[in-house]
Amino acid sequence: MSGVLTRYAYLGPAGTFAEQALRLVPGAADAELLPMVTVPEALGAVRDGRADAALVPLENSVEGAVPPTLDGLVRGDLLMINREVLLPVTFNLYAAPGADIGSLKTVASHPHGLAQCQGWLRENVPGAELVASPSTADAAEGVLRGDWDGAVCAPVAGQRHQLAELAVNVADNASAVTRFVLVTRPGRPPAPTGADVTSLVAFIAHDRTGALLEVLTEFAVRGINLTRIESRPTKERMGRYCFFLDCDGHIEDARVGEALMGLRRVCADVRFLGSYPRAGADHEGDGRAEPSDDDFADAAAWLERVRAGEV
Amino acid sequence: MSGVLTRYAYLGPAGTFAEQALRLVPGAADAELLPMVTVPEALGAVRDGRADAALVPLENSVEGAVPPTLDGLVRGDLLMINREVLLPVTFNLYAAPGADIGSLKTVASHPHGLAQCQGWLRENVPGAELVASPSTADAAEGVLRGDWDGAVCAPVAGQRHQLAELAVNVADNASAVTRFVLVTRPGRPPAPTGADVTSLVAFIAHDRTGALLEVLTEFAVRGINLTRIESRPTKERMGRYCFFLDCDGHIEDARVGEALMGLRRVCADVRFLGSYPRAGADHEGDGRAEPSDDDFADAAAWLERVRAGEV
Amino acid sequence: MSGVLTRYAYLGPAGTFAEQALRLVPGAADAELLPMVTVPEALGAVRDGRADAALVPLENSVEGAVPPTLDGLVRGDLLMINREVLLPVTFNLYAAPGADIGSLKTVASHPHGLAQCQGWLRENVPGAELVASPSTADAAEGVLRGDWDGAVCAPVAGQRHQLAELAVNVADNASAVTRFVLVTRPGRPPAPTGADVTSLVAFIAHDRTGALLEVLTEFAVRGINLTRIESRPTKERMGRYCFFLDCDGHIEDARVGEALMGLRRVCADVRFLGSYPRAGADHEGDGRAEPSDDDFADAAAWLERVRAGEV
Amino acid sequence: MSGVLTRYAYLGPAGTFAEQALRLVPGAADAELLPMVTVPEALGAVRDGRADAALVPLENSVEGAVPPTLDGLVRGDLLMINREVLLPVTFNLYAAPGADIGSLKTVASHPHGLAQCQGWLRENVPGAELVASPSTADAAEGVLRGDWDGAVCAPVAGQRHQLAELAVNVADNASAVTRFVLVTRPGRPPAPTGADVTSLVAFIAHDRTGALLEVLTEFAVRGINLTRIESRPTKERMGRYCFFLDCDGHIEDARVGEALMGLRRVCADVRFLGSYPRAGADHEGDGRAEPSDDDFADAAAWLERVRAGEV
Repeated sequence: MSGVLTRYAYLGPAGTFAEQALRLVPGAADAELLPMVTVPEALGAVRDGRADAALVPLENSVEGAVPPTLDGLVRGDLLMINREVLLPVTFNLYAAPGADIGSLKTVASHPHGLAQCQGWLRENVPGAELVASPSTADAAEGVLRGDWDGAVCAPVAGQRHQLAELAVNVADNASAVTRFVLVTRPGRPPAPTGADVTSLVAFIAHDRTGALLEVLTEFAVRGINLTRIESRPTKERMGRYCFFLDCDGHIEDARVGEALMGLRRVCADVRFLGSYPRAGADHEGDGRAEPSDDDFADAAAWLERVRAGEV
Repeated sequence: MSGVLTRYAYLGPAGTFAEQALRLVPGAADAELLPMVTVPEALGAVRDGRADAALVPLENSVEGAVPPTLDGLVRGDLLMINREVLLPVTFNLYAAPGADIGSLKTVASHPHGLAQCQGWLRENVPGAELVASPSTADAAEGVLRGDWDGAVCAPVAGQRHQLAELAVNVADNASAVTRFVLVTRPGRPPAPTGADVTSLVAFIAHDRTGALLEVLTEFAVRGINLTRIESRPTKERMGRYCFFLDCDGHIEDARVGEALMGLRRVCADVRFLGSYPRAGADHEGDGRAEPSDDDFADAAAWLERVRAGEV
Repeated sequence: MSGVLTRYAYLGPAGTFAEQALRLVPGAADAELLPMVTVPEALGAVRDGRADAALVPLENSVEGAVPPTLDGLVRGDLLMINREVLLPVTFNLYAAPGADIGSLKTVASHPHGLAQCQGWLRENVPGAELVASPSTADAAEGVLRGDWDGAVCAPVAGQRHQLAELAVNVADNASAVTRFVLVTRPGRPPAPTGADVTSLVAFIAHDRTGALLEVLTEFAVRGINLTRIESRPTKERMGRYCFFLDCDGHIEDARVGEALMGLRRVCADVRFLGSYPRAGADHEGDGRAEPSDDDFADAAAWLERVRAGEV
Repeated sequence: MSGVLTRYAYLGPAGTFAEQALRLVPGAADAELLPMVTVPEALGAVRDGRADAALVPLENSVEGAVPPTLDGLVRGDLLMINREVLLPVTFNLYAAPGADIGSLKTVASHPHGLAQCQGWLRENVPGAELVASPSTADAAEGVLRGDWDGAVCAPVAGQRHQLAELAVNVADNASAVTRFVLVTRPGRPPAPTGADVTSLVAFIAHDRTGALLEVLTEFAVRGINLTRIESRPTKERMGRYCFFLDCDGHIEDARVGEALMGLRRVCADVRFLGSYPRAGADHEGDGRAEPSDDDFADAAAWLERVRAGEV
């Protein structure tokens, strides 16, 4: 990533959580914001140069991974994650001004929104039909259009259209957080900060016994903490998966670099997705001292001396 | 699972792929079929006794895991998988009689259907708005209701409503397969067949280093082939996951029983989801001879002799 | 091991460290003691019934393993270790009455004795020729016979022959300890005490990759602490070894029994050498809580319930 | 190792197997040969500059490791193995001219010689007393001196003193082989040949769980075949060992270098003992393709590109 980013694509329309998250990226507020209808389109805009970066959701602490983002990162031209943004998710229920909750016959939201609020909706709007809309922002707009009566969406969307706020914080799990990632065309990763994440995709060789165990061992033997493992089908056939892995550390760290080389040797393929600062204090270490780069540098210097016969 | 199953819940409405899959279950054709609106409702019907079993989708070879099924199996009263059904997925495009493809302004399908056909739709119905419907069957009914112009759904749904078949096999990936599982209240698993799957959920202890590696080692050390690993958030906080694991073998197999005991010891919790016959020939072994139960029986008999001092 | 042991073979002649160690075995003082010339003869006396037990040295904290004992345990009819005895080794220098240290031209000891005292001898008896005798007791007797001038041996041997004690504690490493084991014909091992050792020999399959790693993993996966690993050639050809392993725990412990069954499956052969109380407080644990038998019993009960469908 | 070696120490006296082995080292025949009484003295001669190299026995396919060599390599100034020599061991029985086998009352040999021929001696010279001599060559000389009647030694020793050859090939195990190593002061190891051995000593950290398993994993994860593992007491206290390891490959190989760095990080200490050509065809691989240096170079180049953002 080099130069100034001036055009940011994001999962639109305006008023989604993605826009809220994007406003947390330094510099984005002054840049050109390009709402996109789908994650593949947002990623495509970066790939074809219409945008410098795209902010897309990667996972949610309640709903889990966002498959279109994973699939969009693993196929097509290589992209690189430069930053992550953690956004607490707040869903409110909005309707046309004057409406009350008992009158709602249809309530729309993005399927994830419906899923995260289904307990509340079943209890508080028991008779309403639930409608899947392409985005939470579209759910709000649909109220304006008269497509449905109510919308479960981000506060920013309801407020933008001056809808009536019938209920706040209607998610079943109040502490839900969405993790967004800022994606660019590939380049040199941002400099290590000492608290970084490295993301990659490992395609294991299916004709080798215990291939996934081998992959995890490449990290364990070097004292690297894996923070996430997510399988996705390779779409070739049932039973074939690739693995999205996040680990502590930066590709510039000796231990991470060595582990990546190990993966490169034992895997059918490896796609590096980026090294970037870990957001928030939400990550808990496992209480074990990880080997420092000093340990690796000491070992490398020792090897150099021994190889040269200088003891 | 004991006794005859007479009432089957499934992810409805009538006309979905789930119904097609259910018709492949021996005995189901003569039983009472109960279409349910959501996966949680189908599972709930089994839990509260309204149904004897539920057929729900677990994963798709293109779209990956079905989160509501995973979340529904891991929470609430224990349920047990008794059977798996692999169904090749065929999507056709239907519309009202007399319509032609150029006239479609809106096309609906379940979000998975839209995802799996998005390439074809973008190319062949470029101007149409894509609408997310709660099911592919509902997409077909919506055409009848006049809610939208076209529906991407299973052949059985289009035919049921005598819609016009505008295109067949419109999925981007023609070989997509959905894996359904038949779920009952817990009981003694079906007898081993020699080609079985065991499914479980492992909750790893997050304060122990390398806990996932330990879990995989419990299988590897006993020569058991893991065929699937799927993480899901525990919903407590970002970065906490549980792991859905499928392995070759049956809980009655000595090697699988011993591995399960090992998991029970090293994991914070283990939920056994069932042992059942592997469907189809779609599974490929890794070419390694797995230890047989004879090997385990021989070792146990030897231990008995040695402990008793009879050599 | 059953019944009362009345005849004990040991590595003689009378006056060796083995006799000193044997006197620490409860009941041995009142039994018939049979000094044997070599370790193979002592073991042979047990095998052919001339003795009920044999006390032989297994390892020394300075000199390491005692190969004839290892080789004698791994070949021939199975024998079983019932007890270990740790004996601090004290070497003194003896000569004929009236001799002084400057007059010694030849000094004899068992090769291990010469090895353990070589620094002291080189410094304090620099001109003396060092002679290898079959035992330290024979070294003392040789002084009487006039075969050599001095003997490095156990106090009990010098005192028995009323030799002159020219120096005490002449070992280079004052804290040397020899570990003896009491060996019988096979039978039911002594009951667990809560602080036991299990000894065995593993013959790894040489055509399998990482076979030794597999062996160690069988212990590690069950939380069992290995306290000793010793390789010995199988004598078939250069590069073929078997492995003597000691671990914490008793064959009656669930975790040890399960690990032994695992070894039985992955190894070409396993020879169980015994489970017996750990002597002394010389063993340090690794500070990790080992899984208790309760953990194993809980896991087994859980498996039983799950298999039976009783949840 | 640099320059021409002109003075070779070896485990003497002249006429031992070590001399026979030394004559197999290119250039040694024309050099100054310095027989030493013990292994520590031979190694000391290299350390203090009296010799350029020492040939000492490391292990025997029947008797196992040679403890004084291991202990001499692990303590004191660092030494380096530059070559290994495999010597088939042939023991003959010699006596004074005119003697016959029935008249032998005492037969001498080095304890290893007695051990390797004990079955034959017991059967063929049943009444003779067996005497431990400091070397097999000394056993031959002792016949000349009149110290004993017979000597079990190398042909070269019997022939040197024109003794009568009473029996040939009297070892119980006819195929015994001794592995000698040529040791120098440290320097740059000899260049890789493609079939090399690397020897080292690992001191594991005793307060870390599973430390030996970690050590073996450092090799396994990089596809390196371990050919020998030998424990020796550290002499601090009972139960503390260090591990002598031999593996396939050369320290200049990327995979071996990386494994050594890994050991350096996880072990309390590592002593590199040398990389040198593997002697003979006596080594059997495990049939697995080891990763080549090309695999490592490819992975390193890939990492370089990814780090630089050049994809």
